[in-house]
Amino acid sequence: MSEPHLDANVGDLVFNEAGLIPAIIQDDDDDVVLMMAWMTPETVEMTLQEGRTVFWSRSRSEIWRKGETSGERQWVRSVNYDCDGDVLLIRVKQDGTGACHTGERTCFHRVLAASQTPSEES
Amino acid sequence: MSEPHLDANVGDLVFNEAGLIPAIIQDDDDDVVLMMAWMTPETVEMTLQEGRTVFWSRSRSEIWRKGETSGERQWVRSVNYDCDGDVLLIRVKQDGTGACHTGERTCFHRVLAASQTPSEES
Repeated sequence: MSEPHLDANVGDLVFNEAGLIPAIIQDDDDDVVLMMAWMTPETVEMTLQEGRTVFWSRSRSEIWRKGETSGERQWVRSVNYDCDGDVLLIRVKQDGTGACHTGERTCFHRVLAASQTPSEES
Repeated sequence: MSEPHLDANVGDLVFNEAGLIPAIIQDDDDDVVLMMAWMTPETVEMTLQEGRTVFWSRSRSEIWRKGETSGERQWVRSVNYDCDGDVLLIRVKQDGTGACHTGERTCFHRVLAASQTPSEES
């Protein structure tokens, strides 16, 4: 990782009342959105320093190094943040078969609705 | 919108303690992640029924029809949800110059870190 403004910018981030910020993870090779998980200030720093994603597990209340046991690590290519400073977008190189614990490549594999004839084009 | 399993699937979604679910908005034409915002069960239903994104504004505590005043509406192409059922990924056709109130196309226009030599490839 090469980042001259690290400290200043992490300070710009806005964490919620639980001390967390959501991180959207996108595949840097083909732009597929793989997952969303949460980070603390500490795991944001760890992600930047280690060059791979480190989250906060809300269910286990512990640091969660993505892929530590499964091998499905995510290598950070870039980290952006949004206009409110309260959401991260992290582009990664995904190791293994994918990001989802179900074995699917993306966690977003379930469809709620799909448009056959987009209304603006019909 | 064409959705045979609407009611059943909205019932599968998991809303947080504030009654909200995060919705990641991705441009369906070029896969750029445009923004993330929050929805209530009601605004998820409105989004599906109206075929354009309707959010919940946490700062104003009111329903927020994206682009209602700016014209930067988002027409829904598909709605997916993740393995935990607590995050939405909505692919849209974005009207206007973009999704961000700053005038940028994506809300994620600020860079926290960018890798020059990804560690797995060096």
